[in-house]
Amino acid sequence: MRELTVGIDIGGTNTKYGIVDRAGNVLLQGNIPTTQYEEFQDYFDGMASALRAGIEKLPSDTKVVGIGVGAANGNYYTGNIERATNLKWKGVLPLAKMFKEEFGVPCMLTNDANAAAVGEMIYGNAKNMKDFVVITLGTGLGSGFVCGGVLLNGHHGIAGEVGHTSVNPAGRYCNCGKRGCLETYVSATGIKRTVYKLLADHLEPSELREISFDNLNTKMITEAALRGDIVAQEAFEYTGRILGMKLAETVVHTDPEAIFLFGGLAQAGELIFKPTIKHMEANLMPLFRGKIKVLPSAMQNQAAPILGASSLVWDFLDKQVMVAH
Amino acid sequence: MRELTVGIDIGGTNTKYGIVDRAGNVLLQGNIPTTQYEEFQDYFDGMASALRAGIEKLPSDTKVVGIGVGAANGNYYTGNIERATNLKWKGVLPLAKMFKEEFGVPCMLTNDANAAAVGEMIYGNAKNMKDFVVITLGTGLGSGFVCGGVLLNGHHGIAGEVGHTSVNPAGRYCNCGKRGCLETYVSATGIKRTVYKLLADHLEPSELREISFDNLNTKMITEAALRGDIVAQEAFEYTGRILGMKLAETVVHTDPEAIFLFGGLAQAGELIFKPTIKHMEANLMPLFRGKIKVLPSAMQNQAAPILGASSLVWDFLDKQVMVAH
Repeated sequence: MRELTVGIDIGGTNTKYGIVDRAGNVLLQGNIPTTQYEEFQDYFDGMASALRAGIEKLPSDTKVVGIGVGAANGNYYTGNIERATNLKWKGVLPLAKMFKEEFGVPCMLTNDANAAAVGEMIYGNAKNMKDFVVITLGTGLGSGFVCGGVLLNGHHGIAGEVGHTSVNPAGRYCNCGKRGCLETYVSATGIKRTVYKLLADHLEPSELREISFDNLNTKMITEAALRGDIVAQEAFEYTGRILGMKLAETVVHTDPEAIFLFGGLAQAGELIFKPTIKHMEANLMPLFRGKIKVLPSAMQNQAAPILGASSLVWDFLDKQVMVAH
Repeated sequence: MRELTVGIDIGGTNTKYGIVDRAGNVLLQGNIPTTQYEEFQDYFDGMASALRAGIEKLPSDTKVVGIGVGAANGNYYTGNIERATNLKWKGVLPLAKMFKEEFGVPCMLTNDANAAAVGEMIYGNAKNMKDFVVITLGTGLGSGFVCGGVLLNGHHGIAGEVGHTSVNPAGRYCNCGKRGCLETYVSATGIKRTVYKLLADHLEPSELREISFDNLNTKMITEAALRGDIVAQEAFEYTGRILGMKLAETVVHTDPEAIFLFGGLAQAGELIFKPTIKHMEANLMPLFRGKIKVLPSAMQNQAAPILGASSLVWDFLDKQVMVAH
């Protein structure tokens, strides 16, 4: 029997799912709108029937051995989604337990950045690494830590919230309720805010002056920078400087072999990697200098969130040490 | 046979050693001057003969099953002391290998803060915890992380250097070569520097104005604060504020159940715990608020460094997963 796993990525707008083999081939994928369901039970039923329809189409020599789910505020220990701010269903949602009961296989749930870290270890650039960090640069900044080959979950199941370390206690307002958190500077939203700050403070002409805040995105800033736009270039320099300074603090906590950058901002390549590495090195305790790789994630395709979620099951089966939900 | 372990704490001035049982009773202890030996081999021979003399005095129903060593810049993976700035012997010192060959038992080496963390887990207040941090407040600020019940060593064996995260990139000069590191503010030396800064900036009378920088110590500042000295009290408030702000960043990395404070500054009790907890909570990402305990270490006696070092052996034997040197 060829073993397969299900990967589910629950976003605020869409839920993507796929069925994946151990090598990372996605045999089948689909999505359902997350926002369409008023009640959580109805959402679960919709998801379960979509999955069941998918499983029926699989070749007869295959078997689904587990379900992995990545979701904001997903807790690995409890298998619950807890008070997610990006979903309309309030309170504690016992999703792993529901999937396990419905499909009779283990279900692992964690937040999307932790799923990305395990995905990097199972399918990506961290296959032979035991100590690394994945930084996801999307709407916010997520992080997942693998230490000694094991995903760092922490005591309450909420480790790896580096996006909410402090850049400036009197700085930009953050969705978490604080001010000056790293993700308000370093993320797709953060670099937009930086562009607008630079446009406000400086006199330089810039093609970005023609674009509204709501329409502006990382790709536009990247392309403008590559065309020589000074404001766009300065926005990357500023973003990389702050990321590098804060990575220097993360490094002395867990001493990783490498830090992987994932997401749209990371796809800007040298524009973001160069200032990040420069300022990380400059701010590192000398003992660590020249030792820490900063690398692009290998998981940059559309299926990355599905692969990350599905990897939780392979990791669980590889280790066989934790109790499945 | 009753099993015993040797614990050795190598300080810049003195090396303390002891022979310890699993319950943490120190059966025998002594020390040799670290500075007396020009050559590292002579130091090792002196240490080995002192230990041999100690072992000969042990009851006949006992057996030494391993040697644990805590030393600045001790690397758990290699068993070497690497370029320690507080010792006169330069380069890489293969101490664990030498002890293993000399005594025919496993030898574990790590830095003193990591040894303190394992000591807290084996003998102290973290006996039932799997995720916690120990912050050692001595001349500098050391830190040891236990995650999922395992000491966090990192890829290069140098994890846990929280003393060298940044408070202010243009701040106080640090021994590591950077400026504004946490330990320049929060440590026995840090609070002295703060007292002198406050005496320089303010006009308040203070009994600390009569004491030279070289003579001032944490105990004097503590006693002055308890007597109502405003400068001493403000120094504790300032130190706790900075420690609390930075602990809020450490917490979101590894999500510990508790943070233990160890050392002279921690013995100031409420004077340091109160501002630390207050400012940690105020700066924490809301998701973590009210969840993280800040507690005194149970290892506050003279033998603590010996116990910490010896605990490395018990931890190794308990786990039996790593290769002994």
